[in-house]
Amino acid sequence: MDNAADRIWTDFRTLRETTPLVLSLTNSVVREFTANALLALGASPIMSDAFEEITELVGIAGALNLNIGTPTPRSSEAMAIAVAVAKAKGIPIALDPVAVGATQMRRKLVDRLLSMATPTVIRGNQAEIAALAGLSSAARGVDAVGNLEQAPAVVRQLARQTGTVVVASGATDYLSDGNNVIAIENGHPLMARTTGSGCVATAVIAAFLPISSHPFSAAISAMVVMDLAGELAADHSQTEGPGSFRVRFLDSFDKLEPEQIQSRIKLVQL
Amino acid sequence: MDNAADRIWTDFRTLRETTPLVLSLTNSVVREFTANALLALGASPIMSDAFEEITELVGIAGALNLNIGTPTPRSSEAMAIAVAVAKAKGIPIALDPVAVGATQMRRKLVDRLLSMATPTVIRGNQAEIAALAGLSSAARGVDAVGNLEQAPAVVRQLARQTGTVVVASGATDYLSDGNNVIAIENGHPLMARTTGSGCVATAVIAAFLPISSHPFSAAISAMVVMDLAGELAADHSQTEGPGSFRVRFLDSFDKLEPEQIQSRIKLVQL
Amino acid sequence: MDNAADRIWTDFRTLRETTPLVLSLTNSVVREFTANALLALGASPIMSDAFEEITELVGIAGALNLNIGTPTPRSSEAMAIAVAVAKAKGIPIALDPVAVGATQMRRKLVDRLLSMATPTVIRGNQAEIAALAGLSSAARGVDAVGNLEQAPAVVRQLARQTGTVVVASGATDYLSDGNNVIAIENGHPLMARTTGSGCVATAVIAAFLPISSHPFSAAISAMVVMDLAGELAADHSQTEGPGSFRVRFLDSFDKLEPEQIQSRIKLVQL
Repeated sequence: MDNAADRIWTDFRTLRETTPLVLSLTNSVVREFTANALLALGASPIMSDAFEEITELVGIAGALNLNIGTPTPRSSEAMAIAVAVAKAKGIPIALDPVAVGATQMRRKLVDRLLSMATPTVIRGNQAEIAALAGLSSAARGVDAVGNLEQAPAVVRQLARQTGTVVVASGATDYLSDGNNVIAIENGHPLMARTTGSGCVATAVIAAFLPISSHPFSAAISAMVVMDLAGELAADHSQTEGPGSFRVRFLDSFDKLEPEQIQSRIKLVQL
Repeated sequence: MDNAADRIWTDFRTLRETTPLVLSLTNSVVREFTANALLALGASPIMSDAFEEITELVGIAGALNLNIGTPTPRSSEAMAIAVAVAKAKGIPIALDPVAVGATQMRRKLVDRLLSMATPTVIRGNQAEIAALAGLSSAARGVDAVGNLEQAPAVVRQLARQTGTVVVASGATDYLSDGNNVIAIENGHPLMARTTGSGCVATAVIAAFLPISSHPFSAAISAMVVMDLAGELAADHSQTEGPGSFRVRFLDSFDKLEPEQIQSRIKLVQL
Repeated sequence: MDNAADRIWTDFRTLRETTPLVLSLTNSVVREFTANALLALGASPIMSDAFEEITELVGIAGALNLNIGTPTPRSSEAMAIAVAVAKAKGIPIALDPVAVGATQMRRKLVDRLLSMATPTVIRGNQAEIAALAGLSSAARGVDAVGNLEQAPAVVRQLARQTGTVVVASGATDYLSDGNNVIAIENGHPLMARTTGSGCVATAVIAAFLPISSHPFSAAISAMVVMDLAGELAADHSQTEGPGSFRVRFLDSFDKLEPEQIQSRIKLVQL
């Protein structure tokens, strides 16, 4: 993994130069934070809830960010149409199955979207990834429950089942393309004390998809950038809790330097 | 009131240890701030708008936070179902009747919810509490209009009418269980310069309900913690206005110490 | 333009003294930021999405802020009813045609609203104003695409076509009443790195409408206050990126002094 930091920096620079337009159909709690994170990163956000206009919007998007955090029948329809159009046009899709184990509505929506097209990347917390893999229905709301020892195996299993790249984020992030499993041991506990940090991670993955050669490396780049923004924010001299952390987290996307990636990155091939 | 500070600290510590899951059906303006405040406090937030999944979500929740700030027919249905399920399962309910005096839709929704079940606590500003008590329909939008001299009597009256705990927040907060009336003279004017501070107060009350022996003491604990977070944020050396106040307000939930409660608390039994 | 700074300060002081109630029907991404900006400015925000209650809410509002950023059939109906009631009652309207060039749904909604009543002010970015003037359908999402050389002429053209005041904001803001064209060369690039700064500009214009003698001077006052809040925030010693900029931007509304307007204002009559 010698030049992993270099590849990530190259991806990040390309992202900033090309400002990919990320269309988010996301939950109503994290829209502002997601849009601000994408802007701070260097991408361009657009959001919509309306299936009436979603075909036109997918047509101008560089990537699609789908998040089921506050599902409604209308938003479910919009997501289904968005998936169909994205598939037809070859636009990459990042899917965030928020609290998929908590309700039948969420499970049915994810099943429907997965039956229509394979997302380019699926990202959830470990409980959500386990629920999707059929291993558990015990997700407690939207927050992850502990660190599963078998997380690396579960991530690979879901990647194989779905034939796509899967990311389970947590204290350690696990990523798999069905063969390889990578662990990223970066990040900071304050990320779990701010709403939407998981949702933002999926949006950041979406932003890296149009500019990266492979979805797996896009996901790695995105999660490293995400985790390092968290570390830099937590280390900021004026960060004293979850409120000031959020502020410096957005700043950190804008300020991230290649040397910081080089010195901080903790990638492990499992 | 000698050991009020001790009891509040005990409640707060229990909350942090048990991280109650608070299900919020709340308005679309304050969702992110509410979720972040609950996370900073030490609770776990989940939000939904969809009556299709609300029965399952109430089933895993420790408390229900209902806020009518941006009502729609769909969210009204979801709230009604949530109240029915919470009542059947004995899950406590905090109700926030935002701008209830402003429109018939809001009044009808609150009347409907009150006819189904008695909330464990009702919290509003003084204008909203007066409107609910049938004393005034002159609420100007969502912000409280002045300090009513008769506020303590109005709070007690509504507590008796509804048979529950009522909180009217403002420069001074008044709380009543129908017999006693308590005044809390903590807080800071910047709390009124940030959107959602009332809505967050109700969410914080909801978070204290599952861990406190009595709803009245839960409401007292919650309002003191809320007001002291406001005072600490306003006193922060880097707070210069409503923007930086919000940041330090979230930090303060995380940093609150028992000594600060002891030295700052201003509870008055009326 | 000798006493422009004085007039703006007088408007701003009047706004603070009268705290106009601004009813916003706005997109779901920027509601919290818009409400906080209005509170920091000294106005009073109320928001709703529901056509069932919109007639009553327009009745108590000092101004109407309409923003089509996340349109739905329900919000479109609410906006149409709001326009009809505002017209009948003489309540000023600020209209923000977010990404109007991107979808037919947005174009039809704006056409419908314009056919019902002439807004008091229309504010968009240059791409949106050009799209409305029939000059371009090439708006790329919600962000402006470059600086059009012909922007002053386009703004005047749309002001003539619609018979109202038009504002095209960007690195330089252009404002026209159909005869005069004013350029405001204030502001800061970080404003474009934070979501909702355009939407907030329109809300700020709405807040100035009830207290200013002419819509054109209200728009000028609002855009200068907006741009100077951006400059002051960017100049703040603790601003290091888009996250901390947002915090100090809200603070700056609260702290703006007449001397700062006097020394910083860059108005040019074209």
